[in-house]
Amino acid sequence: MTHHRVLVSSPIQVGSSIQIAGDEAHHALRVRRLAAGAVLELLDGEGAVGLGVVEATDKRGKHDWVMQVRVDEVRHVPAPRPRLEVCASAPKGEASEQLVDQLSQVGAWSWSPLACARTEVDPREGKLERLERHAREASKQCGRAWRLRVEPRISLADALADRGAALVLAHVSGAPYQPCGAERIRLLVGPVGDFEDREIEAARLAGARVASFGVHVMRIETACVAAAAVILDHEGRVRSASGT
Amino acid sequence: MTHHRVLVSSPIQVGSSIQIAGDEAHHALRVRRLAAGAVLELLDGEGAVGLGVVEATDKRGKHDWVMQVRVDEVRHVPAPRPRLEVCASAPKGEASEQLVDQLSQVGAWSWSPLACARTEVDPREGKLERLERHAREASKQCGRAWRLRVEPRISLADALADRGAALVLAHVSGAPYQPCGAERIRLLVGPVGDFEDREIEAARLAGARVASFGVHVMRIETACVAAAAVILDHEGRVRSASGT
Repeated sequence: MTHHRVLVSSPIQVGSSIQIAGDEAHHALRVRRLAAGAVLELLDGEGAVGLGVVEATDKRGKHDWVMQVRVDEVRHVPAPRPRLEVCASAPKGEASEQLVDQLSQVGAWSWSPLACARTEVDPREGKLERLERHAREASKQCGRAWRLRVEPRISLADALADRGAALVLAHVSGAPYQPCGAERIRLLVGPVGDFEDREIEAARLAGARVASFGVHVMRIETACVAAAAVILDHEGRVRSASGT
Repeated sequence: MTHHRVLVSSPIQVGSSIQIAGDEAHHALRVRRLAAGAVLELLDGEGAVGLGVVEATDKRGKHDWVMQVRVDEVRHVPAPRPRLEVCASAPKGEASEQLVDQLSQVGAWSWSPLACARTEVDPREGKLERLERHAREASKQCGRAWRLRVEPRISLADALADRGAALVLAHVSGAPYQPCGAERIRLLVGPVGDFEDREIEAARLAGARVASFGVHVMRIETACVAAAAVILDHEGRVRSASGT
């Protein structure tokens, strides 16, 4: 059976007792009606996955619940390989939440809003903070030991300047994706109006491979999830075959 | 440059003149402000893609616009291969629209709401009609020559009884997808509560391959787009390699 999952911000260590307040406590105690003795799955979003037991609960005020949880078991899940860093122009409105949800589910490592020539949406600090919280919740819901990171805005030039990552630019003009076995892969997805030709050329010059993940025009969020699924599928096969 | 796209319900034949009314006319004339002489791309959703010129426009009443379009060119796009028929339990609320949008963009052939033991959402006739219209619009937006079909509800037993299609059941317990080269592939995606074990067993007995398209739990719409992207990617490579 699956236990109710709780995201914690403190370290998860066997024998320790963690205090959980805020939304997580409210949801567990008020919505799910859990009580002392209930077993919880604890996630810190940094690879630690624990099992804990609710020892005590308290209501300190309206909507202000708190619970004390004893940690009985912890395992550490290795970080996913490869790390797929998605740099994609932010879509409009609620499609950003959808993007974060879907990238969490499909197993991307991070998302950065990519600023290109034709990018129209520049999420402000407050929006990015909300998306970061959204990513934590989405990561919890799909049981990720490592949460999806929401990173600051990055320019195409800066995204291309990272020499430690294999660069892949998603474009309908590209070739089928070829797995590369890299530890870090950076996927670039353009804005609604598409990359400019000179941007694609700059990416090629920076060593990026231009790859196609479908024959139709896709919205940003669909392109991201389709490309991420295909890349992780191919890279997973290469790793299985080589036993790494 | 890209022309304004219009979906037509009449056959597209060179030299013929088509009358376009309703939402398509309203959008072209009122929203896009096109006038006589404008060039349009015409799609019938059945493989015919035409270029036409607006010959005359008329306003017959409030919101009731009509235009006459002369067809100058037509080409016929072959149906996509393979035909990827997605049988997936309907998600709740607006996620159905998202599912239809994303399946259009990723290149699926059709979607049927799949009825399984734990399926909770059974879209009524009216909802399916709305989704069919939504699929036409989504197919137009991504420039599909062949529109995404929204099919009636299908039971898992009936979905498995189709001997003409290669059957693939998406499940986290499955193996990596292996391309099969079939002309028709039927992808089965379960409800929020997942397939029951006996349903997965029944699918195996019916010859379905159980394939995994990611390591995390995915929502229905994410599982559909990720699986469709991976399947079409692999099948496309097989066809390129064999020259078919």
